[in-house]
Amino acid sequence: MLIDALQCGHFSREVFSQLRQGGVSAVTVTCGFWEDPMESFDSLGKWRDLVGENADLVALARTPAEIEAVAASGRTAIVLGFQNTDLFGNRIRLVEMFAELGVRVVQLTYNNQNSVGGSCYEAEDSGLARFGRELVREMNSAGILIDCSHVGERTTLDTIRHSQKPIAVTHGNARSVFDHSRNKSDDILHALRESKGVIGCAVYRNITGDYFCASARNWAEMVAKTVEIAGIDSVGIGTDYGHDNGPADYAWMRMGRWTRHVDYGASAPGKPLKTPRAEWLAEGVSGLGKIAGGLKEVGFHDDEIAKLTHGNWMRLYGETFRQG
Amino acid sequence: MLIDALQCGHFSREVFSQLRQGGVSAVTVTCGFWEDPMESFDSLGKWRDLVGENADLVALARTPAEIEAVAASGRTAIVLGFQNTDLFGNRIRLVEMFAELGVRVVQLTYNNQNSVGGSCYEAEDSGLARFGRELVREMNSAGILIDCSHVGERTTLDTIRHSQKPIAVTHGNARSVFDHSRNKSDDILHALRESKGVIGCAVYRNITGDYFCASARNWAEMVAKTVEIAGIDSVGIGTDYGHDNGPADYAWMRMGRWTRHVDYGASAPGKPLKTPRAEWLAEGVSGLGKIAGGLKEVGFHDDEIAKLTHGNWMRLYGETFRQG
Repeated sequence: MLIDALQCGHFSREVFSQLRQGGVSAVTVTCGFWEDPMESFDSLGKWRDLVGENADLVALARTPAEIEAVAASGRTAIVLGFQNTDLFGNRIRLVEMFAELGVRVVQLTYNNQNSVGGSCYEAEDSGLARFGRELVREMNSAGILIDCSHVGERTTLDTIRHSQKPIAVTHGNARSVFDHSRNKSDDILHALRESKGVIGCAVYRNITGDYFCASARNWAEMVAKTVEIAGIDSVGIGTDYGHDNGPADYAWMRMGRWTRHVDYGASAPGKPLKTPRAEWLAEGVSGLGKIAGGLKEVGFHDDEIAKLTHGNWMRLYGETFRQG
Repeated sequence: MLIDALQCGHFSREVFSQLRQGGVSAVTVTCGFWEDPMESFDSLGKWRDLVGENADLVALARTPAEIEAVAASGRTAIVLGFQNTDLFGNRIRLVEMFAELGVRVVQLTYNNQNSVGGSCYEAEDSGLARFGRELVREMNSAGILIDCSHVGERTTLDTIRHSQKPIAVTHGNARSVFDHSRNKSDDILHALRESKGVIGCAVYRNITGDYFCASARNWAEMVAKTVEIAGIDSVGIGTDYGHDNGPADYAWMRMGRWTRHVDYGASAPGKPLKTPRAEWLAEGVSGLGKIAGGLKEVGFHDDEIAKLTHGNWMRLYGETFRQG
């Protein structure tokens, strides 16, 4: 089995076919960034149609058991996720409703501070705010996995402490392995290890660096370094792979409706708009099938590879996902 | 002339009549707290109808000249304001549109942190956030006065520095005169004096205290103490008077849709839901006519009374309001 805890962009029959070629058992897709509640309901509607139209390749999954069943049927399980809490519109009671509609992973902030907490791109982060404390407990009880990938250092640490269930960094790397504001400090990785959370190692070049993008073996070296910090039970895969994003998609992700000025997100002035893929994923997510081999090459045993490729996510999903 | 920079609650023909009895030339009304963009457009629609139905008593005003003209006609000018930035829904381009529709005063945060900055009730305030910096400049250019009454200490100071125009604390008191987290530090009052901003002294008992509520003269003593800190050019009136609020209104203001738990706002456990009025306003806003007399009793001269009752607001409105 192979689970990718975050992909985004435009999904299509072609993408679903690539996921099958890559042997991807389950993928958490991004249903929204800056979308408000109504726009988020719209997005769920589109996802239901898209999955229904491609039922020979994919199926929605709400529980680890459903992920296993979909994978056993030779298809890829789609887990519904959001990269921001704007879908809730500061309405605590919408959390349970979105959970009932199948949403299983929600990131507390995208690139900007909000009513929940601080983001990794703000100059400062004052931690989990009043609504944030309410929301974390509500997500715990509604059965939605809390994602702190783009969340600020202090809010992430606050969330790990305040949450009654383990949390995820679905797509990010260790900052001590590759230094970027989007990546996570050793303090956070240690806190994830203590609390049984999981970090999904990313392949997105801006937060991974050229060396670890050069081959599946090199990338597996980065995973090994992450395991040294976070432990073998707290590391998984979360590529942050974006499908067919164009200028309008980058503008939406980075600028949303909040600014008239250019914002670079994880990129920087002078870099190309479309960040080049990792060499080993040059042909798309069909290349994800190389991961197990890369992990073996750098010395992981089969039981460890099982944890890294799917076991840790399945364990965390079992502890956090609403059952049905 | 007499300008009250903040009232909220249910306005009606009866309230408008009281405003006339109190000799109130202009009042900034609260069109929303947690309302999202569409709900805020709805609120503007209701205000247009309400003012139109009572055109013999009130009229909307968008500029100091319009305030003067309405006052000269023997009516009370209504200035449209919001106590939160949720009306913009993180959409920078809505700022100008709301300004074109007559909105002239917007508070950056209500009681909770948001994407703009921190509130006075959060445990900590990390200052003006990424969107906050964009929004302040947009409000400057669109012609909306920035209000930091419920805003946190650091975000307020950041805003004064970052704004290209002076700002307001439309309804609040000096913390060194009455200690409450909703009231403003001497640092903020000094920064307002330096930057030509204005603080509107409030009458709301929870942030004013019993002594200053006991009579118009006592309240004028508080104004005098505030003038000692902020200077005669940076103090005005902003009562925070709430008209006919019931349990559902307090629940909306304090809990919105963000929590299932009780939140007390400026009140506290054990205090009555409905805070008793200042004694000198026991019969309603018709009592506001006593202010000039109170200010005279504590020793202010006529030219100073003119600044405190309306001149400072008119000067600030002239410097910040969109012209038409």
